[in-house]
Amino acid sequence: MLTKATIKYIQSLQHKKFRDEEGAFFAEGPKLVNELLQGDVFVCKNIYALPEWGSLLPEQLKNRYFHQTAFIKDFELEKISALSKPNQVLAVFEKKKADNNPLVKNNISIVLDDIQDPGNLGTIIRIADWFGVKNIVCSLHTADMYNSKVVQSTMASLQRVNLIYTDIEIWLTENKTIPVYAATLHGEPLQSISSLKEGIIIIGNESKGVSDAIIKLADKKITIPSFGEAESLNAAVAAGIIMYEIRR
Amino acid sequence: MLTKATIKYIQSLQHKKFRDEEGAFFAEGPKLVNELLQGDVFVCKNIYALPEWGSLLPEQLKNRYFHQTAFIKDFELEKISALSKPNQVLAVFEKKKADNNPLVKNNISIVLDDIQDPGNLGTIIRIADWFGVKNIVCSLHTADMYNSKVVQSTMASLQRVNLIYTDIEIWLTENKTIPVYAATLHGEPLQSISSLKEGIIIIGNESKGVSDAIIKLADKKITIPSFGEAESLNAAVAAGIIMYEIRR
Repeated sequence: MLTKATIKYIQSLQHKKFRDEEGAFFAEGPKLVNELLQGDVFVCKNIYALPEWGSLLPEQLKNRYFHQTAFIKDFELEKISALSKPNQVLAVFEKKKADNNPLVKNNISIVLDDIQDPGNLGTIIRIADWFGVKNIVCSLHTADMYNSKVVQSTMASLQRVNLIYTDIEIWLTENKTIPVYAATLHGEPLQSISSLKEGIIIIGNESKGVSDAIIKLADKKITIPSFGEAESLNAAVAAGIIMYEIRR
Repeated sequence: MLTKATIKYIQSLQHKKFRDEEGAFFAEGPKLVNELLQGDVFVCKNIYALPEWGSLLPEQLKNRYFHQTAFIKDFELEKISALSKPNQVLAVFEKKKADNNPLVKNNISIVLDDIQDPGNLGTIIRIADWFGVKNIVCSLHTADMYNSKVVQSTMASLQRVNLIYTDIEIWLTENKTIPVYAATLHGEPLQSISSLKEGIIIIGNESKGVSDAIIKLADKKITIPSFGEAESLNAAVAAGIIMYEIRR
């Protein structure tokens, strides 16, 4: 039986302020939770699960995590879940320490200038993981990587990509030795950076694009050639196409 | 003042069954609504707007649409809007007649095998519009193109792309003369279809991918090469990368 205090604690982890204070977040569903437990990147604090979750768990995870698991009832899971259809298990993890001085030399890094939509951020984290991009540097107004919608949409890529939240204007200025490219609507065709081995790619806000102050810090503006009439592409789709071209 | 019947009518347009019966859907926000009015592809039935919408409208649209506009109050717009932040105007349009025998010869067409997420469908419609793909053939379980989330996320691309809902197994069998490619996780590298001039690209469901029955109808399986550990890419991102490569 969950106490009122526990329910309140988990519900409050839906808010960034509280996640920051507690240094914690939660993930849901057997696929994602089991992957995070196996991945061992995030320290697990507590698990709340329906009995059926336990029966499907690999022996090795069972031995390690059963003492931390509270087995609860459907209606209790509904109370703490952020999903419209709660899915067997919710686990609370400690946030990981970001690597604030990531290796950008000889690497491709992504900078996000105010990506607002949690779904887009989650998708971009998966894209980074797919194309082997280790670092995403987020502006301070970018959606929080521990937002439950982000966590759910990353499909465990969260444990393999390093996200930093910082003033990107300062960060870009400090990393001026690396070539910087801004994704815009009126730049050079994307093919001009094919097979790039070292660079920083800036993806802008969903409606405003890359802000003027940040564009100024780019060495080149790049554009995905258009063959139709759409005004723009979704920010995550643009990020995916750019990473594809770089790795092509 | 909106009548109860009008409020009920617009609210019911959030459900596919009722949209089908009425042959109508709605769009919201000045940018999208004005573009759809200007585009003249969808016949406008009614407009419900705050007074400020009218003051910003181009003269030509004013002359044409003011007699159809009911000026309403904030609290009324809140009642009929599907947005968390209602945005000045909601317009009801007639659905357009799909072209059920689209020209696939010498063209690129997209087939969607049960894309469930309305946001993904809207994003794919924008991708098609960006890359000049005229036709999207949707399986009967794909999200509805007139779902308000789809409409809002297409950014008026809805009027430039032809969507058909049909049994895609039958449709693909009928179009066997055109090369058919299925996007999968274990196929030939995507570059093998670079600069394709004629073909049908199948994008699968978000969690299950392209179904076995449909894969059988493809001439080739194609894959976006991976350089990391993510299990998959978001379906709309995959569609974007494939269209980019084809037009490259």
